[in-house]
Amino acid sequence: MASTLPPIEIADASPEVRAVYDDIMRTRKIDWVNNFWKMLAHDPKTLRRTWESVKEVMAPGALDPLVKEMLYVAVSASNGCDYCIASHTAAARKAGMTDAMLMELLAVVGMANETNRLVQGLRIPVDPQFERKA
Amino acid sequence: MASTLPPIEIADASPEVRAVYDDIMRTRKIDWVNNFWKMLAHDPKTLRRTWESVKEVMAPGALDPLVKEMLYVAVSASNGCDYCIASHTAAARKAGMTDAMLMELLAVVGMANETNRLVQGLRIPVDPQFERKA
Amino acid sequence: MASTLPPIEIADASPEVRAVYDDIMRTRKIDWVNNFWKMLAHDPKTLRRTWESVKEVMAPGALDPLVKEMLYVAVSASNGCDYCIASHTAAARKAGMTDAMLMELLAVVGMANETNRLVQGLRIPVDPQFERKA
Amino acid sequence: MASTLPPIEIADASPEVRAVYDDIMRTRKIDWVNNFWKMLAHDPKTLRRTWESVKEVMAPGALDPLVKEMLYVAVSASNGCDYCIASHTAAARKAGMTDAMLMELLAVVGMANETNRLVQGLRIPVDPQFERKA
Amino acid sequence: MASTLPPIEIADASPEVRAVYDDIMRTRKIDWVNNFWKMLAHDPKTLRRTWESVKEVMAPGALDPLVKEMLYVAVSASNGCDYCIASHTAAARKAGMTDAMLMELLAVVGMANETNRLVQGLRIPVDPQFERKA
Amino acid sequence: MASTLPPIEIADASPEVRAVYDDIMRTRKIDWVNNFWKMLAHDPKTLRRTWESVKEVMAPGALDPLVKEMLYVAVSASNGCDYCIASHTAAARKAGMTDAMLMELLAVVGMANETNRLVQGLRIPVDPQFERKA
Repeated sequence: MASTLPPIEIADASPEVRAVYDDIMRTRKIDWVNNFWKMLAHDPKTLRRTWESVKEVMAPGALDPLVKEMLYVAVSASNGCDYCIASHTAAARKAGMTDAMLMELLAVVGMANETNRLVQGLRIPVDPQFERKA
Repeated sequence: MASTLPPIEIADASPEVRAVYDDIMRTRKIDWVNNFWKMLAHDPKTLRRTWESVKEVMAPGALDPLVKEMLYVAVSASNGCDYCIASHTAAARKAGMTDAMLMELLAVVGMANETNRLVQGLRIPVDPQFERKA
Repeated sequence: MASTLPPIEIADASPEVRAVYDDIMRTRKIDWVNNFWKMLAHDPKTLRRTWESVKEVMAPGALDPLVKEMLYVAVSASNGCDYCIASHTAAARKAGMTDAMLMELLAVVGMANETNRLVQGLRIPVDPQFERKA
Repeated sequence: MASTLPPIEIADASPEVRAVYDDIMRTRKIDWVNNFWKMLAHDPKTLRRTWESVKEVMAPGALDPLVKEMLYVAVSASNGCDYCIASHTAAARKAGMTDAMLMELLAVVGMANETNRLVQGLRIPVDPQFERKA
Repeated sequence: MASTLPPIEIADASPEVRAVYDDIMRTRKIDWVNNFWKMLAHDPKTLRRTWESVKEVMAPGALDPLVKEMLYVAVSASNGCDYCIASHTAAARKAGMTDAMLMELLAVVGMANETNRLVQGLRIPVDPQFERKA
Repeated sequence: MASTLPPIEIADASPEVRAVYDDIMRTRKIDWVNNFWKMLAHDPKTLRRTWESVKEVMAPGALDPLVKEMLYVAVSASNGCDYCIASHTAAARKAGMTDAMLMELLAVVGMANETNRLVQGLRIPVDPQFERKA
């Protein structure tokens, strides 16, 4: 399978793109850039905006980075995005996720997908107990 | 909106259904049963199987119950299941999720949905660095 | 909730739209037209094309109409389309679906959604035994 | 594409995993285990729970196994789960699905996906005739 | 249906939130703020980031704002997000979308959803003619 | 990956199928038929109905063909249908879409997917200003 556009390699990057690539490598303490960014580089504004957003969203805050990466894996599995599953599973492992944690994460993802569709198929109304009190 | 089938209330439950209802209330230390189970009760085998599965999957293990509830919310939000969002947001809060945690959780869900679709639209191949070593 | 466009009632239909409405009522042996068609009527070509397609696809063939309606419910439940779940559950019932059949149908839908996402989350390769022999 | 985790082969299975593998082969009257179970085996509890659930849900009941396999294919096609489409198409064929039945099944899946999204895009309210009578 | 969190009204906004609200009203030349922003305001960083991103993405560029709003409606219809359909249909209309354009837009959305699932159900390989030339 | 059914090549087509193939090649001014039609050909009625529908929906009308192809790409990217992304990106390019337009299109798709899920996760009610006036 060929990608829609060719990756823009580090050596071929414009200064604007290169600046983002450098920030990615510095922030993540790695010496390579993954294909996602090399494709977004065809639109430097989207590359920069997406990178700045990911950096802000995935930073430690009320949730720690491991939980955030696991949430990312959960959504990606639920959406069937193969690249995203592979890249965020790798990131979650780097952040401390074990195989046992991954298996439990996916068990929850499976269960949620199952009950989501049972609920919608049965057209179940929300119990008042679950609603926010005015 | 009427549900597809009427809820089976506690007072009207067969002994087989009532046994599951009682286990739900005992396990969750509450004195009511939410609509999801009252609808599944139309098929006692599905009621029992689903409850036993939820109990096993959501129990503490390699992941703690709060993280599991947050994963459930993330999948439900990504699938647009309104009932499931309401019920598992309530459950996650009971397990300790604050508003700040919820907002960060949803920010990750939003970001994952965004990049999942960018990745698929650009048909990006998985970097070898993300693949399992044979 | 207001719909995006107002329904075009039978009394207000152009001859072109009215002809489709009449065919719907004649084919289904009913004396009313449901909202889906009253909305599509804003584009008479789409109304006609969609009705002709539905009539052809849902007609008895290699599969009987009851199985077809149940497949329709399964997809609609999996997509969370509330209107479609309500209307095709009603149609399936008219074609003979009992509550017990509906509950089993939804149990399969739930299970399929669960295992679909487990499979994608684990990035499981297709076994050669499942592939078509060349 | 490498799977996230390596398959656990029959020869390497723990007694607990082996017991499930044996039940799968006995129930299905085959002498091999497909990759889905070999991946779930990394979490023996999820392996056992999922297998017991699939066995219960897919058994003959109010719906026969062929209809159940076709519903499984319909959901898997609608979710774009390639592995699940391949494996359940194979299972449906074993249960008697012909090519003509498969083509009609997919025509219904396509039509349902089309009208689901037309309905949601137009925000169509459910006709009272489709609602359950109180 | 109650929202998960209460809206933060203009009068109650912190200076940081108020600055974003003011920019929204100034940019869109309106004197009110819609619920989406009033909910995101519970996390001022997410409010600011999302607003800045929307402003950048939806600005005129290689595509004009009307086409962008129509793409937004198409995705929202395909995802079944009722709020997003309502709000972006309103925005597309403001940008010049007529009822006839909306109906054609939705016809394409319906058709795409239909053929997407036919393709996945049949596991159709990409023709070499559609691949990028190396 | 093998497709579920083998493609029906031009040379092997029945007269009924061949007539559709000829119309596809004539309409598109090409001398080959892509795999999508070669698979649908296993059900000549579905082949003909789908081709006639695609021809009608994608023809110039209130929207021009380029916008229609871009909407098709947007939905396909949002659904993760790889074949459809590849084939409709090719078609959109033929109709005049540049790389810059594609990148902006995908930025909108990403943003819409992000905000769709934020909205659903927060259960945001539709503002009265977005509703149709009675």
